[in-house]
Amino acid sequence: MVNGYTGKILRVDLSKKTSSIEKPEEKLYRKYLGGRNWAAHYLLKENKPKIDAFDPDNHLLFFTSVVTGAPVSGACRYTAATKSPLTGGFAESEAGGFWGPELKFAGYDGIIIQGRAAEPVYLFLHDDQIEFKSAEHLWGRTTKEVLSTIRKENKDEKIRVVQIGPAGEKLIRYANVVNELTHFNGRTGIGAVMGSKNLRAIAVRGKAKLQFSDQETITGLARYFNEKFKSNDGMLFHRDLGTTKAVAPLQSLGLLPTRNFQFSTCDGAEKITGEVIKETIRVREHSCWACSVRCKKNVGIDGEIKVDPDYGCPEYETLGAFGPLCGITDLTVISKANELCNKYGMDTISTGATIAFIMECYERGLVDKEFLDGHDASFGNSDTLLALVESIAERKGVGDLLAEGSLRAARKIGKGAAKYTVQVKGQEAPLHEPRGKWGQGLSFSISPTGADHLVVAHDQVFEQEGEPLEEIKPLGIYETLVSTDLSPSKVRKLVYLQFAWSLYNVLDMCIFVGVPENTMFTFNDLVKLVSATTGWNVSLFELLKAAERSITMARAFNVREGFSSKDDTLPPRFFEPVGSGPFKGQKIPEDLLKQAVQLYYSILGWDTQGVPTAAKLIELDIEWVGTGK
Amino acid sequence: MVNGYTGKILRVDLSKKTSSIEKPEEKLYRKYLGGRNWAAHYLLKENKPKIDAFDPDNHLLFFTSVVTGAPVSGACRYTAATKSPLTGGFAESEAGGFWGPELKFAGYDGIIIQGRAAEPVYLFLHDDQIEFKSAEHLWGRTTKEVLSTIRKENKDEKIRVVQIGPAGEKLIRYANVVNELTHFNGRTGIGAVMGSKNLRAIAVRGKAKLQFSDQETITGLARYFNEKFKSNDGMLFHRDLGTTKAVAPLQSLGLLPTRNFQFSTCDGAEKITGEVIKETIRVREHSCWACSVRCKKNVGIDGEIKVDPDYGCPEYETLGAFGPLCGITDLTVISKANELCNKYGMDTISTGATIAFIMECYERGLVDKEFLDGHDASFGNSDTLLALVESIAERKGVGDLLAEGSLRAARKIGKGAAKYTVQVKGQEAPLHEPRGKWGQGLSFSISPTGADHLVVAHDQVFEQEGEPLEEIKPLGIYETLVSTDLSPSKVRKLVYLQFAWSLYNVLDMCIFVGVPENTMFTFNDLVKLVSATTGWNVSLFELLKAAERSITMARAFNVREGFSSKDDTLPPRFFEPVGSGPFKGQKIPEDLLKQAVQLYYSILGWDTQGVPTAAKLIELDIEWVGTGK
Repeated sequence: MVNGYTGKILRVDLSKKTSSIEKPEEKLYRKYLGGRNWAAHYLLKENKPKIDAFDPDNHLLFFTSVVTGAPVSGACRYTAATKSPLTGGFAESEAGGFWGPELKFAGYDGIIIQGRAAEPVYLFLHDDQIEFKSAEHLWGRTTKEVLSTIRKENKDEKIRVVQIGPAGEKLIRYANVVNELTHFNGRTGIGAVMGSKNLRAIAVRGKAKLQFSDQETITGLARYFNEKFKSNDGMLFHRDLGTTKAVAPLQSLGLLPTRNFQFSTCDGAEKITGEVIKETIRVREHSCWACSVRCKKNVGIDGEIKVDPDYGCPEYETLGAFGPLCGITDLTVISKANELCNKYGMDTISTGATIAFIMECYERGLVDKEFLDGHDASFGNSDTLLALVESIAERKGVGDLLAEGSLRAARKIGKGAAKYTVQVKGQEAPLHEPRGKWGQGLSFSISPTGADHLVVAHDQVFEQEGEPLEEIKPLGIYETLVSTDLSPSKVRKLVYLQFAWSLYNVLDMCIFVGVPENTMFTFNDLVKLVSATTGWNVSLFELLKAAERSITMARAFNVREGFSSKDDTLPPRFFEPVGSGPFKGQKIPEDLLKQAVQLYYSILGWDTQGVPTAAKLIELDIEWVGTGK
Repeated sequence: MVNGYTGKILRVDLSKKTSSIEKPEEKLYRKYLGGRNWAAHYLLKENKPKIDAFDPDNHLLFFTSVVTGAPVSGACRYTAATKSPLTGGFAESEAGGFWGPELKFAGYDGIIIQGRAAEPVYLFLHDDQIEFKSAEHLWGRTTKEVLSTIRKENKDEKIRVVQIGPAGEKLIRYANVVNELTHFNGRTGIGAVMGSKNLRAIAVRGKAKLQFSDQETITGLARYFNEKFKSNDGMLFHRDLGTTKAVAPLQSLGLLPTRNFQFSTCDGAEKITGEVIKETIRVREHSCWACSVRCKKNVGIDGEIKVDPDYGCPEYETLGAFGPLCGITDLTVISKANELCNKYGMDTISTGATIAFIMECYERGLVDKEFLDGHDASFGNSDTLLALVESIAERKGVGDLLAEGSLRAARKIGKGAAKYTVQVKGQEAPLHEPRGKWGQGLSFSISPTGADHLVVAHDQVFEQEGEPLEEIKPLGIYETLVSTDLSPSKVRKLVYLQFAWSLYNVLDMCIFVGVPENTMFTFNDLVKLVSATTGWNVSLFELLKAAERSITMARAFNVREGFSSKDDTLPPRFFEPVGSGPFKGQKIPEDLLKQAVQLYYSILGWDTQGVPTAAKLIELDIEWVGTGK
């Protein structure tokens, strides 16, 4: 381990049960840095164009970065990627926890998985060994059972496991990848691809101590972070409540998606806030690897409905998806739905949003009780919610349809149901209301993974009026962003913010410790961190170019899979007026969005269909993308 | 003085003899930073399109940056700019010395000069006063006389003066601007514009002490520089010989332009090296403001030909232009030609190159002795060289024609003489042989000021094979540059290097202390310096975007003045084979250059004619350029 990376990438062929090691040269590590860049690089180089997501040759990738495993808050994440069974495009999702660092302790920067095992297996990486172990006995079992079984049968409680749940086995198109029961590569259905490969889990035990180039600076950054943390209200609030902190402010801002985005305020939201969770059902807290924030919480309920605290606490997105989006404000029900998803390995956003979609279809009379196996799917019906979550996980009855995601379900239903799906490129929107922050609308439209707030995310924080945050000025943004604006000047700012946010996914850094809104690690601190782990005298120019590289490679992948500008838009819902709250009556102007998308392309160096130009590929030093090799 | 700038820009109307103060807001200072950016900004905003360079309304600008006057080596420069009487396009030239810091001590970041004085004047800025003083008694006098007269008549030996010489008064199209007799805004004929305004000089006396945001870091950087300096062979060599160091290596590399670029090695070059100068005619050394390098030298000769040491020492470019380019290897003659140019205020490169051009015309029989007022203009004729320098400065006989520059002279001569001019956009090439470093060829082609090695310069240093310099890696350049290459991948590297080099002109920093080849101030040190002077938490991303902004604004200016892609090429000479040395037979492939220029445009976000696209203007936050206001 030198320069922030082990230098080894593990390649596994599940069909042949073989493995090999690849050693990219140093300049490739510097050019790609990690996570999303490696993912896009290997998918473009190795995946067959237009391959079916469930084809054994669809590659499944796990990657860390050159900072993963450095003992500072936030440097604990890893990227999972593949071709998405949900969108048909670039699938990528990051997760925290412990598995990413553990992979590096075991001596690997990433894993490339190809082929399909003849029968269920799991991989066990330890002591330079790569074991293909039977997972017959794990198949169909909950994530918790599998985690403990793997540890038990290998006699090592320190083993870290990424796995799918039964939902992944059953190819639920939004099945996720789970580690430690509370950390998820949640979006784009990567778990289903893992399931299609008969790969239930990758267990890792690493014993190497990572040596970084400048340990002293890393220690200094960790100390600096901890000091700053003590007096940072934003971060202390985040420690206190985690992402559940968002419910109350979004409700009062009028940005809390409700009843399948028909409304953006929810009566009773005060019953499901982070504050209430803390006071009522929270039983403990936990953390990701080496992070002093400890934003992760656990809730436990021992009543008629029981909720197992080992499955964590619903995050903001989950509270939103099973709560207001479905018209529900019962914490017990939401917590149970969360537990079920985590137990079965399903993305809570897509699960909740697909159910919210069918609820709207039901209320509008497009589907009836019979279609819904006898359920009354009115908004607010908690029993139906929980029943549908179970049905989906088991692909039972209507669950089999809903397991395909809202867009595929709508097409089956017909009768214009598609107009009630709130998705982009087939992926359901996260719990962010773009009509109150238009930049988010652009972000959803052009995200390579469909509606995904972490791809071009910029929060309402950046969109408030007044003085711009000091922390975004190093991006050359000297004026504040106005929420309901999609002018050329706003698009410019969003592009630079996209570069910055993408950098977190390239470095597999947690956004919560680094994003400007928290004013913890500034961009120049990130520069210091990368320099300290690698020994390279990097600059923010270089890092943001790497981020831009990842955006353009992800785009090039989607172009190859058949996406074009027609896919870069929003669902009809966002062109309709919001039904309640401060933004009541507000909608995204469709023409303005179209112009913004075209301008976004131009700024990115893409043509009018969003195809990266030869010049841009050359500029980003990825000329090979244009030629396919 | 806060944040690295005084906050005041002085506007002077010479026609009305009035002045006023403008106070741009902070975010404009952060966006433009200084020098070239302010120049391009004001020329675009205020100059009438297609105005004649000698029209009173052509603005003449002097600007410093947010680091000028910080007591670290290199932060002593300023930019002069206007519309060029030589190229008809963007005129810009930086100079060191003492005047830039002095202007800030006097309370101004820059001066905008418009109009024309009814009779010769000079400006005297001191103690918050702006005096318009008669220059009738200075008109026609040498730069040395004027400098001492101004100091004497204002009873202050500490006054710093920028001035033109008699050449500027006579509108020699490559007249320069001089400060302290040895520092020059040399190129693009800015001195002629100053002359056309009847403005002989701007004398400045400033008494304010600059307060920067973080004095401690600035002191630390100065100390760090001095420490590093002691063990840096490259910089110690530079201190020892200044730019004259270049003669010997360029001769042995085969990159020493000889006889109007017909050859690239010169017999007898060993007689005019920096080493020989040091041993024979050097009498003392001097320095720019607050610089520990002291690269400036003085030569004195007291023989039949006398050379006054107060006019400095010929720099490399001057040695080359009056030496090998004219077939001359006599140090006394070259030193005399240098003294004459500095005394009269003429650019030594254009003067030498125009004479070299006429020498080739003479040898080829396009002009004869009669045309040349009886001179034998064979290459190597020292008497003719010195006589022609005098004639040009006085616009006497053939000098009147040569004072127009080589291209205008060639057009007058006719007979295909233009093919022997070695110029781009009318500005004569500096002493760098692009056929041995093709990147320099691209650089000459697309420079907004015509053939100018400091605009997109990247030296042969970057073009050697082997491991790339550590210092250019933060630009995302991980592979070395090969000299005789203009592949897409090379163009990419050149673009990023152009951003970096342009940053020096935006910050008015001396390239010799900062450029990668000297490994003194790295790019991240520049980031620290700007942060320390301003208190802004800047990044290299932000700084390089500012640099890119300056490139695109300069381009937009030229587009408005009528330039298009047809002007972005090289003179015929560079498409012909080199006549001697290691690169004998080598030429720039014209097709490859065309492709490289087009790719350069695309990467810069310009269309096929080199017109910046709307999207690029938006991205660089200079949308106003497209609309004219």
